Amino acid sequence: MNSDFFMQKAIELSIKNINNNGGPFGCVIVKNNKIISEGVNGVTQNNDPTAHAEIVAIRNACTKLNTFDLSGCEMYTSCEPCPMCLSAIYWSHIDIVYYGNSRENAAEIEFDDKFIYDEMKKDINARKIPLKRILKDEAIKAFNLWAQTENKTKY
Amino acid sequence: MNSDFFMQKAIELSIKNINNNGGPFGCVIVKNNKIISEGVNGVTQNNDPTAHAEIVAIRNACTKLNTFDLSGCEMYTSCEPCPMCLSAIYWSHIDIVYYGNSRENAAEIEFDDKFIYDEMKKDINARKIPLKRILKDEAIKAFNLWAQTENKTKY
Repeated sequence: MNSDFFMQKAIELSIKNINNNGGPFGCVIVKNNKIISEGVNGVTQNNDPTAHAEIVAIRNACTKLNTFDLSGCEMYTSCEPCPMCLSAIYWSHIDIVYYGNSRENAAEIEFDDKFIYDEMKKDINARKIPLKRILKDEAIKAFNLWAQTENKTKY
Repeated sequence: MNSDFFMQKAIELSIKNINNNGGPFGCVIVKNNKIISEGVNGVTQNNDPTAHAEIVAIRNACTKLNTFDLSGCEMYTSCEPCPMCLSAIYWSHIDIVYYGNSRENAAEIEFDDKFIYDEMKKDINARKIPLKRILKDEAIKAFNLWAQTENKTKY
């Protein structure tokens, strides 16, 4: 199996998902040259705005491998991951990502990937959705307790 | 109820979660001045790298309201959302976010939020995790099919 084979599988999932009334996105995760999980976009079918193909595939892979760390895994996704999915890729420590369509292609069919990437780059006070900081002296107490806690599981 | 009240609730969740062997993060979502969902970080307990407090709270709110659109809702989160959670906030159309700790505070206790924000801003070819584009002429077929499909559910 080579990378084209696995990408073709992700693309097939993306096309099949349209016929199932879902968004045009598919993803597979590969370890040791074998597919260990699949994901398709399930936002509208499952009422879950976080159910992008990549998030679904990451959650399925972690359940299957019984870990929160996907080091040693490769992702094949039919479209460049949006910032949500790219961050999830970082948190899960996937080694490498192969993608087909770009964020510009996604913008052409009215998905917000590029818009959100552009928002990410802005100062926190210049974004479309306001972010307001309050009670920082209270909130830091949890971080101080975490710093003092022994035998915690880091990630 | 005012914003301090709801933030205090998110902070309480963040502290309680440490005692449950979870990461120091808590979140509530509010609609019409009432808490409609809660979330705590469950990455290590659930083997799910996407189970940040905000993602969990968004998924719970959507299940409760039976929608993928949280317009009209406010989020109170004990820490500035990481890029994964901030993007999920955009996808879910939450109106406003209140936060306590900053990404810099999170970096001080060894969480990667700031690192991932910095990675987001980089060119796609300059990031720590490689992203390679392949089979773009195949992948676009799904987007073309989506564009031609009538009666699809947009989001």
